[in-house]
Amino acid sequence: MFNEILQGIVQQSGGGIGAVLMGYDGIAIEEYSEPTEGIDLHMVAVEYANVLKEIKNTAEILDNGDMEEVSIKTDRFYVVIRVLTDDYFVALILDRAGNFGKGRYLLTKEAPRLIEALS
Amino acid sequence: MFNEILQGIVQQSGGGIGAVLMGYDGIAIEEYSEPTEGIDLHMVAVEYANVLKEIKNTAEILDNGDMEEVSIKTDRFYVVIRVLTDDYFVALILDRAGNFGKGRYLLTKEAPRLIEALS
Repeated sequence: MFNEILQGIVQQSGGGIGAVLMGYDGIAIEEYSEPTEGIDLHMVAVEYANVLKEIKNTAEILDNGDMEEVSIKTDRFYVVIRVLTDDYFVALILDRAGNFGKGRYLLTKEAPRLIEALS
Repeated sequence: MFNEILQGIVQQSGGGIGAVLMGYDGIAIEEYSEPTEGIDLHMVAVEYANVLKEIKNTAEILDNGDMEEVSIKTDRFYVVIRVLTDDYFVALILDRAGNFGKGRYLLTKEAPRLIEALS
């Protein structure tokens, strides 16, 4: 169920490398990845879970509203993270040649299905 | 010089609230903001400087390449952060009704001018 949704997101977004459904505690529920050299998808997600927790706290301290999405662009990858519930998020990793806008769109579109499947 | 560039970015991006040129140490070089209720631009930038430092470290640990840009979407604001040098970044805060894509474009476009002015 989760795997099929994650696979759809990765394969439909141009340049998708992988997607992970994960808790803020860094424990993954499900992950799907295309065979890619030079990136450990799971480790990326675990590390960003910590960052995300920090951003969430920052947004709360500042009363900036609830965090919905975080995107990080490096000179090698795009990482798009979408908050699902208070406990879980989904992260998509794209190649720099990938379609960042489409990746964001797919995460937004599939978020309700993932939330439903989580509950 | 800095102020004029920041003002241009804020005013040309639809829904721009403010922009800050800041060091990772949380000390601002320059900031420009439109009069807006309910947001302390300076405090937002200081808090995100910490988050950014964490993301930078994470990207380095993971050998994910150099961080270039981070965007955060809450249910009230967009925050777009563009890395300029090893020490400085520029952050743009937009209204949720604002033009996120144009904000990102303007930061990318003006980054070389800011880097030049910093050196």
